[in-house]
Amino acid sequence: MKPFMDKDFLLDNEVAKHLYHDYASKMPIVDYHCHLSPKEIYEDIKFDNITQVWLGDDHYKWRQMRFNGVEEQYITGDAPDREKFQKWAETLEMAIGNPQYHWSHLELQRYFGYNGWLNGESAEEVWNIANEKLAQADMSARGLIKNSGVTVLCTTDDPIDSLEWHEKIAADETFDVKVLPAWRPDKAVAIEKPDYLEYIAKLGKAADIEIECINCLKNALAKRIDYFHERGCIVSDHGLDFVMYAPADKKEVNAIFKKRLAGEELTQEEILKFKTYILLFMGEKYSEKGWVMQMHFGVRRDLNKKIFAALGPDAGIDSINDNVPVGQMAQFLNALAEKDKLPKTILYSLNPNDNAAIGSIIGCFQDSFCRGKIQHGSAWWFNDNKVGMTDQMVSLANLGLLGNFIGMLTDSRSFLSYTRHEYFRRIMCNLIGTWVENGEYPNDDKVLKKIVEGISYNNAMRYFGF
Amino acid sequence: MKPFMDKDFLLDNEVAKHLYHDYASKMPIVDYHCHLSPKEIYEDIKFDNITQVWLGDDHYKWRQMRFNGVEEQYITGDAPDREKFQKWAETLEMAIGNPQYHWSHLELQRYFGYNGWLNGESAEEVWNIANEKLAQADMSARGLIKNSGVTVLCTTDDPIDSLEWHEKIAADETFDVKVLPAWRPDKAVAIEKPDYLEYIAKLGKAADIEIECINCLKNALAKRIDYFHERGCIVSDHGLDFVMYAPADKKEVNAIFKKRLAGEELTQEEILKFKTYILLFMGEKYSEKGWVMQMHFGVRRDLNKKIFAALGPDAGIDSINDNVPVGQMAQFLNALAEKDKLPKTILYSLNPNDNAAIGSIIGCFQDSFCRGKIQHGSAWWFNDNKVGMTDQMVSLANLGLLGNFIGMLTDSRSFLSYTRHEYFRRIMCNLIGTWVENGEYPNDDKVLKKIVEGISYNNAMRYFGF
Amino acid sequence: MKPFMDKDFLLDNEVAKHLYHDYASKMPIVDYHCHLSPKEIYEDIKFDNITQVWLGDDHYKWRQMRFNGVEEQYITGDAPDREKFQKWAETLEMAIGNPQYHWSHLELQRYFGYNGWLNGESAEEVWNIANEKLAQADMSARGLIKNSGVTVLCTTDDPIDSLEWHEKIAADETFDVKVLPAWRPDKAVAIEKPDYLEYIAKLGKAADIEIECINCLKNALAKRIDYFHERGCIVSDHGLDFVMYAPADKKEVNAIFKKRLAGEELTQEEILKFKTYILLFMGEKYSEKGWVMQMHFGVRRDLNKKIFAALGPDAGIDSINDNVPVGQMAQFLNALAEKDKLPKTILYSLNPNDNAAIGSIIGCFQDSFCRGKIQHGSAWWFNDNKVGMTDQMVSLANLGLLGNFIGMLTDSRSFLSYTRHEYFRRIMCNLIGTWVENGEYPNDDKVLKKIVEGISYNNAMRYFGF
Repeated sequence: MKPFMDKDFLLDNEVAKHLYHDYASKMPIVDYHCHLSPKEIYEDIKFDNITQVWLGDDHYKWRQMRFNGVEEQYITGDAPDREKFQKWAETLEMAIGNPQYHWSHLELQRYFGYNGWLNGESAEEVWNIANEKLAQADMSARGLIKNSGVTVLCTTDDPIDSLEWHEKIAADETFDVKVLPAWRPDKAVAIEKPDYLEYIAKLGKAADIEIECINCLKNALAKRIDYFHERGCIVSDHGLDFVMYAPADKKEVNAIFKKRLAGEELTQEEILKFKTYILLFMGEKYSEKGWVMQMHFGVRRDLNKKIFAALGPDAGIDSINDNVPVGQMAQFLNALAEKDKLPKTILYSLNPNDNAAIGSIIGCFQDSFCRGKIQHGSAWWFNDNKVGMTDQMVSLANLGLLGNFIGMLTDSRSFLSYTRHEYFRRIMCNLIGTWVENGEYPNDDKVLKKIVEGISYNNAMRYFGF
Repeated sequence: MKPFMDKDFLLDNEVAKHLYHDYASKMPIVDYHCHLSPKEIYEDIKFDNITQVWLGDDHYKWRQMRFNGVEEQYITGDAPDREKFQKWAETLEMAIGNPQYHWSHLELQRYFGYNGWLNGESAEEVWNIANEKLAQADMSARGLIKNSGVTVLCTTDDPIDSLEWHEKIAADETFDVKVLPAWRPDKAVAIEKPDYLEYIAKLGKAADIEIECINCLKNALAKRIDYFHERGCIVSDHGLDFVMYAPADKKEVNAIFKKRLAGEELTQEEILKFKTYILLFMGEKYSEKGWVMQMHFGVRRDLNKKIFAALGPDAGIDSINDNVPVGQMAQFLNALAEKDKLPKTILYSLNPNDNAAIGSIIGCFQDSFCRGKIQHGSAWWFNDNKVGMTDQMVSLANLGLLGNFIGMLTDSRSFLSYTRHEYFRRIMCNLIGTWVENGEYPNDDKVLKKIVEGISYNNAMRYFGF
Repeated sequence: MKPFMDKDFLLDNEVAKHLYHDYASKMPIVDYHCHLSPKEIYEDIKFDNITQVWLGDDHYKWRQMRFNGVEEQYITGDAPDREKFQKWAETLEMAIGNPQYHWSHLELQRYFGYNGWLNGESAEEVWNIANEKLAQADMSARGLIKNSGVTVLCTTDDPIDSLEWHEKIAADETFDVKVLPAWRPDKAVAIEKPDYLEYIAKLGKAADIEIECINCLKNALAKRIDYFHERGCIVSDHGLDFVMYAPADKKEVNAIFKKRLAGEELTQEEILKFKTYILLFMGEKYSEKGWVMQMHFGVRRDLNKKIFAALGPDAGIDSINDNVPVGQMAQFLNALAEKDKLPKTILYSLNPNDNAAIGSIIGCFQDSFCRGKIQHGSAWWFNDNKVGMTDQMVSLANLGLLGNFIGMLTDSRSFLSYTRHEYFRRIMCNLIGTWVENGEYPNDDKVLKKIVEGISYNNAMRYFGF
């Protein structure tokens, strides 16, 4: 029996161990998509206790506690932090086979030096150890980032954001990690949302353009893209139910946009036409700027309306969308490719059933601009576990070139999540090591090193051009 | 090489063996959903030969025989029982990798003491052994249930059923297994069926209410729910193509219902509105009563019209539905949750592709009523095999809390099917044992015992409140 | 560690090795569906170099090279063959976990005696070895077929084809491999295509019938089916986006057909009605002739319009269709079954998510005509890899009778692809061997031999009746 989560955790054979310990584990981290707050990084915040770090924002953990019948008071309510931690510890024990069991213990091991296991009985001990550790100077936002080996990270920012915190971080010579903004214009796209007009007004103000037509909107977005670009942004990100393709010409879309500005309701068809048009417009811009276009889709959000009313979005009440029209995504990509305006693109579906379709679609749009121009993004959110990551990599390997994969990102709101890169690298090395052990790929160390270091770090650095 | 289906069948490592032999195998059985006949239990029926037990009702086996090119005469026709058995034995040999291979041999081992393998050559030997055994006193319906370790079983009963056999069993002090009715009102929901009006007449008679409006229907159902409740029923079950959500108010649904009562045909939209309405109504009732709502969906039934014309339903001509709108199910659950009327719910889709969506949807509707209030039901029917059960548990583990899973049920028409609980427990212990052996979960015997005994028996007993 | 792709490649245990080396590897090959050119077989063509064999036609390899950022010039363009080969060798190195890595090396081992691995560095060596070998007399089309152990192969032929090359091959006594035509009437079905009328004119000419109505079309097809039948054809094949079911009577379909003949555009509904009708008509014909009906579906073709404009179809720009209405396929099969006209049928979906639905649908339409009358076709195209083949066999085993499976086909345009039968047989033997090693099936050598030899060769020979 292997000891619980020891140094060879998830590494089942000698090649896997060698690849992980000698190559993957030694690479720095590029975290090209996360939800950290640049303000908190600049201010180098610290935490009073582990409940603040673990349960403050983490809707993954909230869901698990609800699964365990815990009362909301101990989840998002006003129960004391120590009691909340107790409830989490008791929940975790039941989470056998769940990635959060591994994430939590990787964090306890790497950041807090705790090598036991957390449950209701050990909660007090862990609480004390963790909180003592959190009081140390190097357990600040910057200390955690730096000591985790991060060289570059991209946050997630709205087009109207001033990026002042990014500027301050960049100007601060005491911190040498690149903290770059990433362009996430979801609010400019979500024309069906009740607060859309307010947002458009803010966007107009940020761009210093009165937005009264589709051209104005395009100009405003273009201006903000320039603004972001000047501040180091080279990555965009879109959160979408699905990637749609409902083409319409400018005149028609202008009419739709004006109808919405006039406060009228749009039909579903009009909404899709607007979104297609504005997403294509931005895609072209990204292509011109050399940016990467990320698309995260396949989600159904805010399903439990009662919790949504109480807590708002990101409350642990989202699900996998079982009905993603991936064929439309192929048409969307083609529309850009036909104009030679398809940017580097990363596609993430929350539905693992889409792996095969995505893997085969990306193969249709590769070109000689760079290796692996269109990427199948790493297993995400509900799939960010051993099975999900393995399935995504096996699918990618079968349908494309795993050797060009740009690998992992945290997608996290927590400063402790960098161990997920370790988790990913162990799983990746185990997959590759197993193939080599089975005689399915030659034991050619030079090439294996190149592949493993590439997927861990080098491919992403080359791909994004950081 | 491991011997064929010996005591360590499906148990690949020492932890798995320990968990199964020392914990799981020692737990009783709660079979909370099956299709046994309470009349046959009360009458304590016996069987003349193994063909009667195995091939009388079992459309799983019928399908396999057709796969082997067997003539219908030997399947559902009037060929002699011995000849039918021969055809089944010859078919089974080709069923390598099929769960029926394992189920059949588990039954031969546990109930008939036969440890060889059944094929065309051994059929005569097995026939004689089995039939001799079937002549023994303890091989009656009750003997089989009792000796299998069953403490509670729930049958499947129509709202119009008088439950007289349940009453008689309950009154019979010589049989201490709880045999409870379960409420399966499919016929009251299936408004599109040709014989719907006849059924409604019968339902009215059973409830002593003339059903002329939607309120009458609701009153009749409520009355019968009370009737069932008084006789120990705390579980409902629904067989549906999919869980729909087409909301409509009472006035509209009343008009739809009256239209149908008048003998008119309904549109697809009207049918869905009626079903949504009446299912929501019953869901609320279950919530009030503390019942569990089971939903079995994702089936396409009676696909081969020629066989259907000859044999009727449940003839082995059903398939997995490849197109289940699981998103509507989430809306359905939300509609109940918004009114604080969501009962304990178990969701079973026949389509394994739905695992991920279901697993993520149930996480949106958990609450502090109890642990694991909304359950992802055990792999069912076509998925009731090693791969299907493992996939369902891995999905549940990744997306929720496996530790709170209520585990297995037979869903069977046969008194010999209890070995499927053994099959499930072996697979479950092997999954958990493998994680422990790999260092993915601590070897903490106290907790592992709790988890394994919970999934085997205790969780279901607590969940249903038997 | 196992050596790279040695004699026990993909065989993980002793039973698997025994089954493969002693049984499977010794069976001949029946390749019942491929895209070889009968003209090239008759002319017994040879190849100047390995680039011609490997990269001339193979859009699988083209895709991979685009994945690696290779310029089109080196893929389908006019770069020198040696340079193209270099680009392929460099691409292959990154294809860890990809079936093409295995296919390429199996071909290098079996046909060229090269046991190293191909990459940028070894490309020169491999180029020389392969080209020297290709100069040998037995490396001609016929030599490769014959020495691969092929006894029967079916090409893919249009109804208007004269089959002259098949006649010539049949008449040539120096070549004793059966090279049979297969009926692929896609162009007669694709009524929406711009060149449909031209095709219908050619079909009319081939059948010597003026095609002015639906009856004429049916007569023409029937006449050509007879023509093919007389020349040994007993297999049909259909390439479809999906198997549709939109029933319509002859009168309506005649009007649709005439509308199209008049040059008008059809609605989507009309197109589906026509296709349903004409496919049902051909299905009946196949049933009458004792032919096998193959249906390949679940594809989205020619997604990248820019490459399509440059290179036409089969250019490596196709994908898996994520949205296959498999339920309609069940209705289609039922429509034939109801009339007792359902032929032997093999169903292949490109979408692996369809496995479960297909596996359960085929069980509804088996009958006593023969064992395994309706087959779930072997993993195809994007799924033709270890995972895809294993998943298809496991699904088939769980839902039907693996023992009756007719096994592998190459579906290839290359004379070197017969090693894919080896690849399949290794995977199949490993799957079965693993079950036996785990005690999940008895180690009954007589039966295992029958099953393995059946799936390798005998089942297909019996099924097709070659």
